[in-house]
Amino acid sequence: MPPASAIALRPCSAQAHPNIALIKYWGNRDEALRLPANGSISMNLAGLETRTSVTWDEKRVARGDAFNLNGSPVTGPGLERVSAFLDLVRKMAGFDFRADVVSVNNFPAGAGIASSASAFAALALAAAKAAGLDLAEADLSRLARRGSGSACRSVPGGFVEWAAGASDADSFAVSIAPPEGWPLVDIIAIVSEAHKSTGSTEGHALAATSPLQGARVADAPRRLDLCRDAILKRDFAALAEVTELDSALMHAVMMTSTPPLFYWHAPTLTVMQEIRLARAQGLAACCTVDAGPNVHVICEADAAEAAARLIADMPGVREVRRAQVGGPAHIESD
Amino acid sequence: MPPASAIALRPCSAQAHPNIALIKYWGNRDEALRLPANGSISMNLAGLETRTSVTWDEKRVARGDAFNLNGSPVTGPGLERVSAFLDLVRKMAGFDFRADVVSVNNFPAGAGIASSASAFAALALAAAKAAGLDLAEADLSRLARRGSGSACRSVPGGFVEWAAGASDADSFAVSIAPPEGWPLVDIIAIVSEAHKSTGSTEGHALAATSPLQGARVADAPRRLDLCRDAILKRDFAALAEVTELDSALMHAVMMTSTPPLFYWHAPTLTVMQEIRLARAQGLAACCTVDAGPNVHVICEADAAEAAARLIADMPGVREVRRAQVGGPAHIESD
Repeated sequence: MPPASAIALRPCSAQAHPNIALIKYWGNRDEALRLPANGSISMNLAGLETRTSVTWDEKRVARGDAFNLNGSPVTGPGLERVSAFLDLVRKMAGFDFRADVVSVNNFPAGAGIASSASAFAALALAAAKAAGLDLAEADLSRLARRGSGSACRSVPGGFVEWAAGASDADSFAVSIAPPEGWPLVDIIAIVSEAHKSTGSTEGHALAATSPLQGARVADAPRRLDLCRDAILKRDFAALAEVTELDSALMHAVMMTSTPPLFYWHAPTLTVMQEIRLARAQGLAACCTVDAGPNVHVICEADAAEAAARLIADMPGVREVRRAQVGGPAHIESD
Repeated sequence: MPPASAIALRPCSAQAHPNIALIKYWGNRDEALRLPANGSISMNLAGLETRTSVTWDEKRVARGDAFNLNGSPVTGPGLERVSAFLDLVRKMAGFDFRADVVSVNNFPAGAGIASSASAFAALALAAAKAAGLDLAEADLSRLARRGSGSACRSVPGGFVEWAAGASDADSFAVSIAPPEGWPLVDIIAIVSEAHKSTGSTEGHALAATSPLQGARVADAPRRLDLCRDAILKRDFAALAEVTELDSALMHAVMMTSTPPLFYWHAPTLTVMQEIRLARAQGLAACCTVDAGPNVHVICEADAAEAAARLIADMPGVREVRRAQVGGPAHIESD
């Protein structure tokens, strides 16, 4: 690694999409390294993105990082989490400079899409590149994982699988099909814009208190096989069955944790039931729900219009958003 | 056993209450014998009852049983299930006479209370007594179990535990506290009067298809201990925690079966959430949900009025019923 003085430090800006998990990540084997209890599969969400620029300041040293999110300076725990992540990059780069981080999401907080995945994927790429590091995709995915587990899945493009791995070295995500491999659509039914009462990081730590987490994790390799096969074969019926099962399994663990976590609201259940009925009548649509009340309705492209109309009319649905399958995290200005 | 001709056969009428399980029965080790996957604990529901009279007719032989329910003759599968149950009594009595069975529930079908438990407890008692059999409570409970698993819990009084047992011989229910042991109240929030799409007998057979059933069953002895201790110590906080956990565990198995069984409706979730919030603010009330959408809100006596008012105002609640802790199955006219 070259000494810091030999590196040409210049601002760098990167973009990354959030992703929606079809096989969920819930619970860590190692909280500090964010090594997951089980592997997961997701698709990136096109159109939705975080844009993050990083400028390393050679004149000043760390612990004075600045973080601006959506136009407002962030302090306290939000800044500390970013700064702790930047420490990893500083260690890799062999310097101790402070960073200016400016980040913008083009989707609102509380829009049913977790922003931590796209945020840490874009930050990992921008911070590493600005530090003169040229990381392979796998290493960038590993780095992003340290900021937020699911961020590792926003580094590669399209349909992505995160192998649980045995250690930090082999726990990263890879693309299993490009965005154009299967033109699915995620129709997001926003039923609440309230911030969730229990954040994901805190929730992951509760997973092991459920009597069901062991069984969910033990069965995960089977579900990963079913989901990967369904994606590779474009078999929507198979994808729908395993996606809904996996979502129910994660919420089963959440609802039986100590304390229990109930993320579903009444309209969450209504959307899930109506989509199940519609699928029984031939609509290629299925549901998955993250650590919040909003429902992601995954559809085949030609079912998206009908699904969106159906959802918009349901009681308790405040807004409907759409996203196609997105590409990888990428540098914006290089 | 005396020959049939030596028995004085005369009509007999019995009453039994339905029960609400605090630790649930879901899934059988032996479907034919209805030997459960795990032990369960329930309380009988006073005021609600099935009254059943049985008359054995010495002049006619079996397979011509007659069954009248709530004033209407029953044929087809309903009669066949009763007749198959009466075969067990005929075998015990050593005769082959037909029976006239007349049964009345004082609570409507679709009122959020399964009638099969009180029905088979009352039928077991009336049919055995009318046949001249004088069964001990444990043997009566074993017999009722063969008609409907949870019926074995409607034979003893008050708070009742059904040990899973190792075989037909030791799988029966016993009282662990009398009705006056703890004056709890069950406030039943009726959110739908529709018949459930998947009956319990069919549902039990699906339990083993869930990846979670093994973990739910393995953890059951711990929950039985917690629930029994809470009842004996009248510790409502402990009862509430284990009751809500156990209900969530059963629904977790249901929702992750193949095919999945979603019994909750949107208002089911609303009632559960509001009662959890009210309990956090000091109301001694907790929720449990059987294989249907209605919510049983278990309360301490002095919380019942407030809980009933709270529930009656919730969206989607059509009717509210109440029951105190009930006594054992008993002969009406002897």
